[in-house]
Amino acid sequence: MKIVIVGASGTMGQYLAKALEKENHEIIRASRSSTDVQVDTASTQSIEEMFAKIGAFDALISTAGPTFVGPWKNLTDQTFRIGMEGKMMGQINLVLIGQHYINPKGSFTLITGALTHEPQINFANASAANGAVEGFVRAASIELQNGIRINAVSPTVIENSPQYFPYFPGEIPTTMRQMEFGFKKSLFGAITGQIIKP
Amino acid sequence: MKIVIVGASGTMGQYLAKALEKENHEIIRASRSSTDVQVDTASTQSIEEMFAKIGAFDALISTAGPTFVGPWKNLTDQTFRIGMEGKMMGQINLVLIGQHYINPKGSFTLITGALTHEPQINFANASAANGAVEGFVRAASIELQNGIRINAVSPTVIENSPQYFPYFPGEIPTTMRQMEFGFKKSLFGAITGQIIKP
Ligand SMILES: NC(=O)c1ccc[n+]([C@@H]2O[C@H](COP(=O)([O-])OP(=O)(O)OC[C@H]3O[C@@H](n4cnc5c(N)ncnc54)[C@H](OP(=O)(O)O)[C@@H]3O)[C@@H](O)[C@H]2O)c1
Ligand SMILES: NC(=O)c1ccc[n+]([C@@H]2O[C@H](COP(=O)([O-])OP(=O)(O)OC[C@H]3O[C@@H](n4cnc5c(N)ncnc54)[C@H](OP(=O)(O)O)[C@@H]3O)[C@@H](O)[C@H]2O)c1
Repeated sequence: MKIVIVGASGTMGQYLAKALEKENHEIIRASRSSTDVQVDTASTQSIEEMFAKIGAFDALISTAGPTFVGPWKNLTDQTFRIGMEGKMMGQINLVLIGQHYINPKGSFTLITGALTHEPQINFANASAANGAVEGFVRAASIELQNGIRINAVSPTVIENSPQYFPYFPGEIPTTMRQMEFGFKKSLFGAITGQIIKP
Repeated sequence: MKIVIVGASGTMGQYLAKALEKENHEIIRASRSSTDVQVDTASTQSIEEMFAKIGAFDALISTAGPTFVGPWKNLTDQTFRIGMEGKMMGQINLVLIGQHYINPKGSFTLITGALTHEPQINFANASAANGAVEGFVRAASIELQNGIRINAVSPTVIENSPQYFPYFPGEIPTTMRQMEFGFKKSLFGAITGQIIKP
């Protein structure tokens, strides 16, 4: 399978790229600093250019979703837009544009997170961006043509991100392997419009 | 109770304003064309000016939430932004700004809709905007101070909007009275962070 990973240089992306490469899939690593293809998901032009370079592919995984993390008092129209452009429009545009490049029966798998339904102090921007992406995933699943599927993976705090543990009191971290299997459920299964809690 | 209704000139807003006025609440009708106070929720400056004019209040209801409705092929970064600025950032900014004007123990009640979880063809933009507002409501409920509460009302297609019936096959419409009671649950109850399905 030819799999594009947007966010391939990050904590989740690196792990997924290695795990899928081991199983002999062709992995294309993308992000602003990636070596395979560079893309800034905040720019529709940059997304178009990425897909033009890559050509047809079978699956796209996104683990690129910047949001504003910080005190509520600093949450304003301006800081809110970090998540709106980053985690929300960035991922939505990967689909709206990528649907014209992906192979029939291909799949999109986006990243959200437990914050959609289990808020934490400092993370309101991520809760909103996640909710938007999840609503979009359900809606896109009944619109996409040619058997193209779409799902989201929604882990809680990841075991390899200990810097976030203090913000998620009492939360049992999602292991990297659970996260990997969440993405595999979408990549290799037949489901669409689902929010996968790994 | 002094209640601001943003979207007071619309189908839901008119009905709610009348119903609450009958019960002797002070209603302030707001929208771009309203006579009490004019506001364009797409502009943070306009929202600031509205609250400065109104002064302290006890509750804000929003039924103002424009989205792009139309064929999937016309859904692009540009059309998506109608719902992002309108139903999403518009309502979120009413809260981020309004929290500095509302009385202690006041409440915000925003509008979403069944499309969050039950998508329909042509309405992906609303599904995403709803999901964002619902994620925000849950997150804001643990951040707001001074006993300020926040909820959303999520009806399915409304009985007074027959123009939408063809797009909601098999859907039993929410009655105006159910919708009214949904808002009352938020206004006069003690709940916060809830998505009320009337
Ligand atoms: N870590 C967790 O515990 C956890 C748990 C649940 C959900 N999540 C969500 O999962 C996502 C990824 O988390 P992570 O920990 O793997 O994050 P990370 O380590 O910060 O990695 C983020 C990746 O996204 C890329 N990226 C950021 N902005 C981009 C842009 N504008 N265009 C293209 N690529 C961009 C980064 O690469 P460049 O900088 O090179 O562009 C990087 O590859 C986030 O949305 C986060 O909210 C994380
Ligand atoms: N109708 C349904 O069946 C139904 C069902 C579920 C959910 N919903 C949701 O409920 C909301 C209201 O529905 P509705 O049928 O009552 O809509 P509507 O009749 O079109 O009324 C919309 C109201 O919002 C105001 N408005 C629009 N854009 C605004 C802006 N930028 N700034 C300030 N005010 C603005 C309009 O007044 P001005 O034009 O004067 O500004 C009007 O008062 C929508 O978000 C819709 O998605 C509707």
